[in-house]
Amino acid sequence: MSSQPPHSTLLIPGPIEFDDAVLQSMSHYRSEVLLPPAHPPSPPDALPSHVGPGFVNTFGETLSMLRQLFITKDPSAQPFVISGSGTLGWDLVAANLVEAGEDVLVLATGYFSNGFTDCFKTYGANVTELRAPVGSRPQLPEIEKALSEKKYKILTVTHVDTSTAVLSELKELTALVKKVSPETLVIVDGVCSVGVEEIQFDEWKLDGVITASQKAIGVPAGLSISMFSGAAMKAFAQRKTPPASYFASFKNWTPVMQNYEAKKPSYFATPSPQLIHALHTGLTQILSKPLSERFARHKEVSDKVKKAVADLGLKQVAANPDDQAHGMTAIYLPDSVKATDVLPSLAKKGIIFAGGIHKEIQPKYIRFGHMGVSVTDPNRKDIDNAIKALQDSLFEVGYKKE
Amino acid sequence: MSSQPPHSTLLIPGPIEFDDAVLQSMSHYRSEVLLPPAHPPSPPDALPSHVGPGFVNTFGETLSMLRQLFITKDPSAQPFVISGSGTLGWDLVAANLVEAGEDVLVLATGYFSNGFTDCFKTYGANVTELRAPVGSRPQLPEIEKALSEKKYKILTVTHVDTSTAVLSELKELTALVKKVSPETLVIVDGVCSVGVEEIQFDEWKLDGVITASQKAIGVPAGLSISMFSGAAMKAFAQRKTPPASYFASFKNWTPVMQNYEAKKPSYFATPSPQLIHALHTGLTQILSKPLSERFARHKEVSDKVKKAVADLGLKQVAANPDDQAHGMTAIYLPDSVKATDVLPSLAKKGIIFAGGIHKEIQPKYIRFGHMGVSVTDPNRKDIDNAIKALQDSLFEVGYKKE
Repeated sequence: MSSQPPHSTLLIPGPIEFDDAVLQSMSHYRSEVLLPPAHPPSPPDALPSHVGPGFVNTFGETLSMLRQLFITKDPSAQPFVISGSGTLGWDLVAANLVEAGEDVLVLATGYFSNGFTDCFKTYGANVTELRAPVGSRPQLPEIEKALSEKKYKILTVTHVDTSTAVLSELKELTALVKKVSPETLVIVDGVCSVGVEEIQFDEWKLDGVITASQKAIGVPAGLSISMFSGAAMKAFAQRKTPPASYFASFKNWTPVMQNYEAKKPSYFATPSPQLIHALHTGLTQILSKPLSERFARHKEVSDKVKKAVADLGLKQVAANPDDQAHGMTAIYLPDSVKATDVLPSLAKKGIIFAGGIHKEIQPKYIRFGHMGVSVTDPNRKDIDNAIKALQDSLFEVGYKKE
Repeated sequence: MSSQPPHSTLLIPGPIEFDDAVLQSMSHYRSEVLLPPAHPPSPPDALPSHVGPGFVNTFGETLSMLRQLFITKDPSAQPFVISGSGTLGWDLVAANLVEAGEDVLVLATGYFSNGFTDCFKTYGANVTELRAPVGSRPQLPEIEKALSEKKYKILTVTHVDTSTAVLSELKELTALVKKVSPETLVIVDGVCSVGVEEIQFDEWKLDGVITASQKAIGVPAGLSISMFSGAAMKAFAQRKTPPASYFASFKNWTPVMQNYEAKKPSYFATPSPQLIHALHTGLTQILSKPLSERFARHKEVSDKVKKAVADLGLKQVAANPDDQAHGMTAIYLPDSVKATDVLPSLAKKGIIFAGGIHKEIQPKYIRFGHMGVSVTDPNRKDIDNAIKALQDSLFEVGYKKE
C-alpha cells in the first residue's frame, strides 16, 4: 500500500513515479555535512535503526554503489555526484576533458545532442556534428570516415535520445572508435538510459557516462551523476590550461569524491544530504537484484508497449527495431489526431504522457515513458492502464484504425 | 509535536534544523516538469488540499516570493533558483557579469571570499583582494582608495563570513561605491545572511545577492538562490563575449525564470520539484510575518548567545560588536581547551556545533549557528539548551573561568 496520496501516473521519459522508500528518504531530517578537519564525529542517534549510518558513510556507499550500477571494477574510474541536473554533466565533460580549440565529434540524434554541442562551444571546443535523419542515428561507416579524417579529443553519443527514443549501440561504436582512433574519449549521454539499458562501462571501454537522478534511477531531480574512466581522468590531468568551469571543475570535485568514498569528510560545495539519502535508497533497491533482470524486465515491458502501438496501427519515431529504446516509446500520431487532444484525454484518465520536443516533428508525436517502479513493481498496473488509456483516448478523439 | 524522530540539534552555521512542513515538502510525490509547448495541463489531483497548485505555479510563486524576501519591487530585478549550491552563485556572477580581463575587487574576510576569488580567476577576471586581519573586515577609507585607483566592473562583499561570523555593512558600503564608482556592480555573498540579516535590495541599491537554500532560509541544501538588479542584467546584456559557463549561463536561465514567474512552463535544465516545493513552503512561512520581526528575533537571540559567551569569559572571533553576525557566533576557546575535546562533549549532549575553518586560527575556535526554526519557533529550546551545554562541556573539559 503506497504511502503516497492517489495521483495521476507520471509516464513521461523522466521524471518518473517514485518508490515510497525513496521518496521518504527525501524527508530525512539529518542534514549535517561534516567539514574537515575539526568537526566532531556524529553522536549516535536516538533511533539508529531509522537513521542508519551518518552522511559520510551514506555518501561514500552511494559512490561505491555507482560503480556497481555502471558495472566497473576499475579503481581508476571516478564517480561524481553533484547537486545540479543532467545538463551539468555536459559542463563536466566540456570544461574538463576538452580545451579551447580541440576537436569534438558529436553524434547528433535530436534535441539533447544539440544542447551538448552548445555546451562544448561555450567552452571553446570545435564541434563537428554527424547528423542523422529524425528517428535514426549516425551509422558506423560514416563515423569511421569522420574519425579517420580528423583527430578528435572526444566523441559523444546520446545513448537514448529522449526526443526520439532512438537507442544508440555503445558496444560496437566504442569498439570502432578504439580501433580507428584509440585516443579519442567516448563519452555517453546516458540521462535517459542509465538504469534501464545495459551499460558495461569497463567491458565496452567507455570513457564517460553522464546521467541524472530523475530518470530510470527513480530518484527526485537535483543530482548530476557521472562516471569517468581512468583514461578520461588522465586526459584531465594532462590539460595544458586549467578547467574552464569552477562549479563543474574536476579539480575541485575529485578529491571530495575520493575522500567521501574513503569515508572521510571533505568539502568543496555543500552537497544535498536529502537527495543523496534518496539516491542511496534508490541504488540499494536497484542493486538488490541482478542488473540483468532489471534490463530484461524493461525490455519485456517495452516490447509489450511497442506491440500495443503496432496493434493500434501506429508507427514509432525510431523506425528501426534495433534502434528503439526500452525505457520510452515515441509514437507518431495518426494524421487525424492532435497531440493537444489526445494528451488531455489521457490526463483525464490519470495518465500523463509527454508531447514531442524534436522541432522537426514536434506536434506529430507523443512520448510514453516506461521506466523504474512503473515497470519493476509487480503491484503496479501503470503500464497496462496506460496502454488501455491510450487505446481509449485515441478512439475517443476520433481515431479509426484502418 | 515534531514529526521528526528524536535527534541531536544541528546548530552549525548551516545546514540547520528543519521545520516539519518544509521537510515533508521534500517528499512531494509530484515530479512532472512541464516541457513546452505540447504538454497537457495537469489534471486535478485526487487530494487537492494536499497537493496545491501545479509545479509551474509553485515555481512561479517561489520566484515572486523571493522578491519579497530580498525586499525588491523593481520589476527589472531578476531572481534565479537553480539546482546546485551556494557555490554555483559564484559561477553565476563570474561567468555572466565579468568578462576575461576585467577587474574585480574582492573584500576578503575569510575562507569563502578566497573561494570567490578562485572562481573569478577561473573565468579570467583580474582580481584585487582587499584583505583584513582575522575577525575584521576591510574599512571604508581603504575601499574608497581602491575604487579611486582603478575602475572595477564588480566589487564583492561577503555579508556574513561563515568562517569568522564577521558581518559587513552593506548600506554604507554600497552608498560609498555608488558615490565613488557608480558603474561598479555591488555583489553580495549572502549565503549565511539571507533570511537572518536585514537586506534592502532596492533601497541600498545592491546589484546582486547570491545565497543557498540550507542556511537561514531553512530548506534542505541543493538550490542556488539569487537576485540580480536591472543594472546587473543590463551589464550582462552588454557583454562583448558570450557567457563563460553553460550550466550557469544567464542566457540559458533568464527566459526560464521569467516564464515560470509568468506561470508558463519553460525548459533549460530539469529543476528539482521537491526542493522547490520545500522552498515554497519555507518562504511562505518566512513571509507570513513581517521580515522586520524575523530580523529582530534573530538579533535578540544572538545578543543572548553573545552575552552568554562573554559571561563565560570567552572572546568572539569578530572583535567589534558592530561587525558581529546575528545568525552565528564564532567563539575563541580558552587556551586550555581543545576544540577536539569540547565539540565531542557537546555532541554527547545532543548539540552539534561546528569547528573552525579559517586556516589562520582553525583549531582555536568553534562556531555556533543560531538561525531559522531553532531561533523562531517558540516551542523549541534549542538555543537555551545549547548555551547550557556549552557551559557544562567547557567546565567538564577542565575550563575554569578566571
